[in-house]
Amino acid sequence: MTKFALLGCGRIGKMHAATISSAPGAELVAVYDPVTDAADAVGRSFGCKVAKDAAEAIEMADAVLIATSTPTHADLIEAAANAGKAVFCEKPIDLDLKRVVACRKAVSGLGVTIQIGFNRRFDPGHRALRDAVQRGELGELQQVVITSRDPHIAPRAYLQVSGGIFRDMMIHDFDLARFVLGEEPTAVFATGSALIERDLETELGDVDSAMVIMRTDSGKLVHINNSRAASYGYDQRLEAFGSKAMLISSNRSPNELRKFDGQFTDAGVPYYDFFPSRYAEAFSNGIISFIESIKNGSKPDSTFDDGEKALVLADAAVLSKKLGRFVKTSEITGAVS
Amino acid sequence: MTKFALLGCGRIGKMHAATISSAPGAELVAVYDPVTDAADAVGRSFGCKVAKDAAEAIEMADAVLIATSTPTHADLIEAAANAGKAVFCEKPIDLDLKRVVACRKAVSGLGVTIQIGFNRRFDPGHRALRDAVQRGELGELQQVVITSRDPHIAPRAYLQVSGGIFRDMMIHDFDLARFVLGEEPTAVFATGSALIERDLETELGDVDSAMVIMRTDSGKLVHINNSRAASYGYDQRLEAFGSKAMLISSNRSPNELRKFDGQFTDAGVPYYDFFPSRYAEAFSNGIISFIESIKNGSKPDSTFDDGEKALVLADAAVLSKKLGRFVKTSEITGAVS
Amino acid sequence: MTKFALLGCGRIGKMHAATISSAPGAELVAVYDPVTDAADAVGRSFGCKVAKDAAEAIEMADAVLIATSTPTHADLIEAAANAGKAVFCEKPIDLDLKRVVACRKAVSGLGVTIQIGFNRRFDPGHRALRDAVQRGELGELQQVVITSRDPHIAPRAYLQVSGGIFRDMMIHDFDLARFVLGEEPTAVFATGSALIERDLETELGDVDSAMVIMRTDSGKLVHINNSRAASYGYDQRLEAFGSKAMLISSNRSPNELRKFDGQFTDAGVPYYDFFPSRYAEAFSNGIISFIESIKNGSKPDSTFDDGEKALVLADAAVLSKKLGRFVKTSEITGAVS
Amino acid sequence: MTKFALLGCGRIGKMHAATISSAPGAELVAVYDPVTDAADAVGRSFGCKVAKDAAEAIEMADAVLIATSTPTHADLIEAAANAGKAVFCEKPIDLDLKRVVACRKAVSGLGVTIQIGFNRRFDPGHRALRDAVQRGELGELQQVVITSRDPHIAPRAYLQVSGGIFRDMMIHDFDLARFVLGEEPTAVFATGSALIERDLETELGDVDSAMVIMRTDSGKLVHINNSRAASYGYDQRLEAFGSKAMLISSNRSPNELRKFDGQFTDAGVPYYDFFPSRYAEAFSNGIISFIESIKNGSKPDSTFDDGEKALVLADAAVLSKKLGRFVKTSEITGAVS
Repeated sequence: MTKFALLGCGRIGKMHAATISSAPGAELVAVYDPVTDAADAVGRSFGCKVAKDAAEAIEMADAVLIATSTPTHADLIEAAANAGKAVFCEKPIDLDLKRVVACRKAVSGLGVTIQIGFNRRFDPGHRALRDAVQRGELGELQQVVITSRDPHIAPRAYLQVSGGIFRDMMIHDFDLARFVLGEEPTAVFATGSALIERDLETELGDVDSAMVIMRTDSGKLVHINNSRAASYGYDQRLEAFGSKAMLISSNRSPNELRKFDGQFTDAGVPYYDFFPSRYAEAFSNGIISFIESIKNGSKPDSTFDDGEKALVLADAAVLSKKLGRFVKTSEITGAVS
Repeated sequence: MTKFALLGCGRIGKMHAATISSAPGAELVAVYDPVTDAADAVGRSFGCKVAKDAAEAIEMADAVLIATSTPTHADLIEAAANAGKAVFCEKPIDLDLKRVVACRKAVSGLGVTIQIGFNRRFDPGHRALRDAVQRGELGELQQVVITSRDPHIAPRAYLQVSGGIFRDMMIHDFDLARFVLGEEPTAVFATGSALIERDLETELGDVDSAMVIMRTDSGKLVHINNSRAASYGYDQRLEAFGSKAMLISSNRSPNELRKFDGQFTDAGVPYYDFFPSRYAEAFSNGIISFIESIKNGSKPDSTFDDGEKALVLADAAVLSKKLGRFVKTSEITGAVS
Repeated sequence: MTKFALLGCGRIGKMHAATISSAPGAELVAVYDPVTDAADAVGRSFGCKVAKDAAEAIEMADAVLIATSTPTHADLIEAAANAGKAVFCEKPIDLDLKRVVACRKAVSGLGVTIQIGFNRRFDPGHRALRDAVQRGELGELQQVVITSRDPHIAPRAYLQVSGGIFRDMMIHDFDLARFVLGEEPTAVFATGSALIERDLETELGDVDSAMVIMRTDSGKLVHINNSRAASYGYDQRLEAFGSKAMLISSNRSPNELRKFDGQFTDAGVPYYDFFPSRYAEAFSNGIISFIESIKNGSKPDSTFDDGEKALVLADAAVLSKKLGRFVKTSEITGAVS
Repeated sequence: MTKFALLGCGRIGKMHAATISSAPGAELVAVYDPVTDAADAVGRSFGCKVAKDAAEAIEMADAVLIATSTPTHADLIEAAANAGKAVFCEKPIDLDLKRVVACRKAVSGLGVTIQIGFNRRFDPGHRALRDAVQRGELGELQQVVITSRDPHIAPRAYLQVSGGIFRDMMIHDFDLARFVLGEEPTAVFATGSALIERDLETELGDVDSAMVIMRTDSGKLVHINNSRAASYGYDQRLEAFGSKAMLISSNRSPNELRKFDGQFTDAGVPYYDFFPSRYAEAFSNGIISFIESIKNGSKPDSTFDDGEKALVLADAAVLSKKLGRFVKTSEITGAVS
């Protein structure tokens, strides 16, 4: 039994609590959240200790799941790793690449398993696509196209501290692109607009609609588009185009009901409403995989370096959007070499 | 150049006129219709002779296309065949199996090419399915399921002389089943209801909704369902289930536009509105194939016998619906042995 | 907390144990299986009492889940109901309609909640289809078409005691048809063949491929086809055709990966491999709904009567296949009036 | 009857000859091609005059269809327009924007109908999408995503004189983007790689794989990706994403056969093999629309200006690829103001 401590009992924390509780070989032993009510509620639901602080929770566990607010991630990773515990940290490690680099240096050599919560890597469809690419089923991979659109724009309060669309939302897609490519994108072009909430750009300097093109050194091309609001549900499509085949890991619906009438044929129900339902299986697989990595001492499928490299791409995108030109990842100070 | 005479200038006649005109190696030389205006209109459109009677039209041609009203089919087949002309006759040969049998006897031995207008055999999808069955791609064929629904119920005047749903509408599906099976259905069970126009059964003894099950001697099973009115367009699905694979030749739409909104995802436009658009390519392929058969002296892909055998199945269905039991085709007097 | 006793720890019993354990508001307190090893394994996995007999397990529980071999179902239903416990019994209640009728009489008036395990009623897609029919979204319902094919034929030992394809396999589809129709089929025509294992008919008098047509008194038509082996996975399609729309609750796949290459486009992965994966959500929903019914004292969504009526249709099918004619449900002795 | 002269009897010229011949209200009266054999063959097939030079052909006609090699387009447009004839010219007008501008000045004020052969505007699906955007069915349009991949890379001899991927191939997509947007893209970012034929870049300075992002002044975003070789057929997808709905005009197949076996489900046949089959209906609709414009004196649906503006975007893409930055269309000398 791997004993888990959960730090952070907000929406995503609660999801992880449920996932851990039903994962074979895992047990939730302690939770902590500075908002006592939130921690109590989760503690009661899952019948585990509500710790008085993060340190106490970490102490009780073999593995620490960090689902707190972003600014606390790096400190908690260091605390847990220094205590010799395995760490599962929600993305992003930090919004500031410098802090990420410092954190990396602090924990390297401690020999603990650290997994970053890039849940999409564990989606059955996306993963089957990646595996097919790796097996050479597509021939030579040439293009990757990612469509990633949220169902509803987040509240302004969230957007304010989110780090912007590239670091908060597209970071998942940067990671997914790297996951599929098997090589690093080294040049990034990005642009975006505030089309859903027109004052987003003037108020926060952020956008709600974005498009990116990336290149690898071997010439592979990647396109990512993002929108903060899609009327038809959570739109998550991953396309890999190769010399011998194209694969698409397409959207998934809550059920397979299809309607045919005078207006439409083959009309399916709207897609899943957001990531907790769309990626439920991925969240569960991610925890199971993390437990395996701890047991076997193997490298997790989504490492600290993956978290850092995705942030480098996001930083390159931010800079590119400002400059209106291709930005090389080598221009981003502090990037992993 | 194969010179065609067209007998019958109604809706389906006009379609054939256009098809012949654009078919390579074919020429429309004469048309005839007892309704002079109809004949004149087609003659003018396609720049060909308007014959004073069927005999004159037949005389001018190498091949005669019969698209007149059903009761005249058999006489015209005999007239054309006796004149040594190739014959393409719309289904059905006749509503009365005895007349069909007599016609068969009258034309057998004349050595002329006779093709019956079972257009669906020439649909690219249905044909590719049949070819795959013949190549053994499905392993052993076990079940055939045909869904065939018209978009709108025909006017009462048409239904009155149609011969009923089994002889008028399902006859296409009986033929399609034989086309795919590669063996004869020998037992037929049929039932039906008047669900669209409730007085159809009391007024005409006909139904607008029907279901059939058939068996072959080797135990293969066939299901056909018909409706005279489908809200979402012309519904034409052909499914072949075998030990190694299932194939479906599915519906086709006028274009591939798909809509995604708060209500639906992947919603396509309604299917083609009826057979002239849905089977446009099939009509054209049927004429081209007929011309090939004439040239090569080869057996058409849809023979007189096919017309007769489909009628035997329809007659068996009519009897089965009345008796509420499996009817063997051998019970149908005058069936082809 | 509803305390459950599980009787029967075979494949389906183990599934139910997992479902109960993760259902909110439910707790597995005891298991029993005459095969001690099976009971011990489940008891260990889920940390609950292994009872020395069924009576002891029943005693400990609020609700009894019966997943034992079919011949024991009716006795255990009576035992549990007499003990005042709620009952969830796997289908079928019994293969012999007389025993079912006797059981019904024995438990009627005891006022306990009894649910029969027709899991498909709880599938999100099938249920959404039924709800749309009930809301009148299809206009007047006219036809129901059910395709239901297992991925692999069961071992001969299972088939021997299964009660035959109509009572063992198609019984689910009979129930599903009733669920959607909202009225009773009163006439049944059935036929079938041994096409997968040719000696099935001579050895067991059973078939592996079957087709049925049913009618209701208002003239609605139903078709069901079954096969014991489909190469492409578990094929479960439910189609409802009405005057205003058609709905299809279609097959579901483990993921949404689609392949496009020189041979195929839009090729999805094979469907779920069988009911435990395809209907996982349905099994879970069924237990949750059962717990709600117990709490609220409301009628379950799948009652004892539903179990009996599906068996009447299966018996009618068996008789029809023998006689080659429509069999009225009123001809089946002992049917629920 | 609109009398057509066809200049150029190569592959695309022959297609147009067939389209004109079968278009109602059109007649092919003369053809010309410097390759006498090509002209003779078309003249014979369609029973029309083989002119001794372009001038003679133009003289005989009401409308001139220019399907000659690109460098002759502008001269022939001027010759035909000066003769007062309507002009249908294949894209591009010229590879050199200066020549296009000069041609525009030469023919402006002559009052003749000039249509450029952007066939995709006449595809039923793409047009229905554009119409829905114009009707406001999508709410506010935010993003356009175009996937456009040829089935096979063209021969080196063709690529050498093609003007490069942006002016030869993506020009169709630039036009399609403008068609859907209803406003002008004013900034273009482009990149590309030689991934199919690795020496294409070193030999010709061209690429076979390209990605573009464009912006309009209102902030709408456009992505286009191109490949010269797709294993699964001609890939033509047009996606419009708006605040209320997304529309996709998807790929079309020669038939609707779908296969289900142990490897795949719902596997369709490969898409149409290239534009002559994929856009057959569009070619025909384009000619019909051109004839309507001549008759009604109305503006064609694809004007000379459209041809020029698409070339400006292509030139901006060429420059952007070189500079690695957003290029504004206002930077392109000679652009239509």
